[in-house]
Amino acid sequence: MTKIIKIAVDAMGGDNSPKKVIDGINYHQKNNNDVFYKIFGDVNEIKKFIPDTLYPNSFELIHTDEKVKGSDSPLSAAKKGKNTSMWMAIDSVKNKQSDIVLSAGNTGALFVIAKLNFKMIENIDKPALSGLWPNKNGTNIVLDLGANIDCSEKNLIDFSLMGSALFKALFPDEEPKVAILNIGSEEIKGNEMIKNAYKYLSNQNSKIFDFKGYIEGNEIMDGNVNVIVTDGFTGNVALKTAEGTANFITNEIKKVMTSSLIGKISTLINIKNIKLFKKRLDPRLYNGAIFLGLDSPVVKSHGSTDYIGFSNSLELCKKIVSGNLIEKIKQSID
Amino acid sequence: MTKIIKIAVDAMGGDNSPKKVIDGINYHQKNNNDVFYKIFGDVNEIKKFIPDTLYPNSFELIHTDEKVKGSDSPLSAAKKGKNTSMWMAIDSVKNKQSDIVLSAGNTGALFVIAKLNFKMIENIDKPALSGLWPNKNGTNIVLDLGANIDCSEKNLIDFSLMGSALFKALFPDEEPKVAILNIGSEEIKGNEMIKNAYKYLSNQNSKIFDFKGYIEGNEIMDGNVNVIVTDGFTGNVALKTAEGTANFITNEIKKVMTSSLIGKISTLINIKNIKLFKKRLDPRLYNGAIFLGLDSPVVKSHGSTDYIGFSNSLELCKKIVSGNLIEKIKQSID
Repeated sequence: MTKIIKIAVDAMGGDNSPKKVIDGINYHQKNNNDVFYKIFGDVNEIKKFIPDTLYPNSFELIHTDEKVKGSDSPLSAAKKGKNTSMWMAIDSVKNKQSDIVLSAGNTGALFVIAKLNFKMIENIDKPALSGLWPNKNGTNIVLDLGANIDCSEKNLIDFSLMGSALFKALFPDEEPKVAILNIGSEEIKGNEMIKNAYKYLSNQNSKIFDFKGYIEGNEIMDGNVNVIVTDGFTGNVALKTAEGTANFITNEIKKVMTSSLIGKISTLINIKNIKLFKKRLDPRLYNGAIFLGLDSPVVKSHGSTDYIGFSNSLELCKKIVSGNLIEKIKQSID
Repeated sequence: MTKIIKIAVDAMGGDNSPKKVIDGINYHQKNNNDVFYKIFGDVNEIKKFIPDTLYPNSFELIHTDEKVKGSDSPLSAAKKGKNTSMWMAIDSVKNKQSDIVLSAGNTGALFVIAKLNFKMIENIDKPALSGLWPNKNGTNIVLDLGANIDCSEKNLIDFSLMGSALFKALFPDEEPKVAILNIGSEEIKGNEMIKNAYKYLSNQNSKIFDFKGYIEGNEIMDGNVNVIVTDGFTGNVALKTAEGTANFITNEIKKVMTSSLIGKISTLINIKNIKLFKKRLDPRLYNGAIFLGLDSPVVKSHGSTDYIGFSNSLELCKKIVSGNLIEKIKQSID
C-alpha cells in the first residue's frame, strides 16, 4: 500500500486565493491519488470553488475566519496568533497531522511563524530560503535567496549540506555538485567569509556532494554544478536580476516578432516552437521556495502564480516528503 | 574649429589584438574626423593591419615591444614597468598628450597601473568600475561592477555622484535618476551600510540627480531609474547573472526555432525581425566599462569583443571627453 502524503495547505494566501489554491489542488489531485490535502481557511469562501470532480476522500476543510494579509509585517502577522489559516497549517505539521506545509501567502510571516513553531535541526545555525532555477542540463538548487542578509562561513557550509540534501531528495538519480557564487574563479577572489568556506569545503571529503569551487553569475545556468550557495543578499539580487532579464528579453522578442505583418505571420507559423520555448522557461515550472534548516518542511509558493504554478508547488511538496528531505539533511550533518 | 579628441589606445590587449583594435579604429574613423588615435604597441604587428583607407593624419603609432598579458596578475603587470603598451597609453594621458585611455587588455592590470599614475579626485574615497546596461527606455549606468568588494555608505554616495556625472556626460538631454540596489523596496530592508546611504541620499537636495530610493534586481531594466549603485560584489554578480540569463534564453530560442523544418522556414521568413532583436540587445552596443574616481578618464573594452564592439568603446571615449566627465564629477562634489 502506498503511503498517503498529507499536505497542509494555507488556502488564503497570495493573489486570487482561495480560488487559485483550490483550482491547483483539483488540478494536482487528478494525477495523484496518494496525496491528502488538509485545507485551512474560510470554508464558506473555499466551498464556492470546490468542484464536484474533486475526489471527496482526498481532502479535508478546516475552517478559520482569520488570515495573514500580504501587507502584514512578519511580526504583526505572528501576533495575530494561532487562528490564522497560515498558523493552523503550520500547527498541523507540528502536531504530526500533516507532513509538510504550503502557502502562497506572506513570505516573511510564513518564515517567522514557522520559526516560532518548528525547532532548528541540530548543528544548523540559520534557516535558509532555497529555490529551483533552470540550467542547461536540468535544475539548480540556489540558496540563500533572502532569509539571511549577512552570512558566516559556517552558514555557507550548512547551505551546501542542506542544498545537497534537497537536491538528492528531488533528483535521487543525480549527484549534487556544489559551488560558491563569487566574482572570479581564482582562489584569491572574494571576501574572507567566502574564502574560508572555500577552504573548508575543498578540504573535506563529503560523501554527500562534490565541491566544484567558485562559479560566477554567468555560469549559474551552464549546468556544470547544481547546488549554488551564497549569502541571502547576493542570492536575492541574482534571482531577481535573472527574472528581470528574462522578462526584458521575452518582451523585446514579442515586440520585434509582431512589429510587421510578415513578422506576425511567421510567428504564427512558428507558434508551436514558441510554445515549446515558453514551456521550457515557464516560471510556473520552478514555483516553490523551500525553507531549509527547520525540523519540518515548509514550502512557499509565489504569491502571483496561477493554479498551475500552485499545483507544481504541491508536486514539489510531494517530492520533498517522499524524498525524505529532513532525514537526508540530518544524515548529512552527522 | 572643432576640438580634436585624442584617444590613447593600447593596441595589444584582448583577444585577436592588435587586428581587432586597428579594425575598430578604422571603422570608427570613417564617421569621426574629430578624433586622433595615439596607438601604442608593436608597430611591426600593427602595421600589417593598417589599411590604406585609414586617414594618415588621424593616427600616430608609438612603438614598444612590451605588453601586459591577460594572464599577468595586476601586480606583476605593474612590475613590468613603464614600457608596456598599457602603461605608455596611460602615461600619454598623464602627460596631457591624450584626453582618455582605452584598453581591451587585463582589467586588474589596467586598474592598478591607472591608480599608480593618476590621482584620485578630491573627496572620492575609492575608484569604481561602471558599466552601461540596457533598460526599457534607454541605458542605465551601473556601479560598482567589481572594483570594491566591501563598500561603505560614503562609497555608495560617491558612486551616486560619479554615476550621475557620467550619465549626464553621455546623455546631456536626460536627468540622472539614482537608486540603490537592494532586496526589498521598504526602508527597513537591507544591511546597515545600505540603510545609512539611503538616509543620507533621501535627506540631501542634490541638484545633480533625483534620488528614487531602492530598487530590486528585477527592476534594473524597467527604465524608471538610470543610475544604479551597489557594492562591487553584488554589482558584479548581478551583471554576470544578467549576461548568463540572456545567453541561456537566446540559446533556448535558437534551439526551438530550428528544431523542426517548419520552425527553420518561419525563422528564415522572420530573419529581419530576429536581426532587429539581436541589434537591440547586442552586447557590443554596451561595450566599455568606465573607471570613475581618478582625475583622468580610463575605459576598458571587453577583451573578447570584436572590432565593432571596440569601435563602440572608442565612441564611448569620445562622448566621455566631449561631455567633460571629469569636470562634471568635480563639480558634483563641491
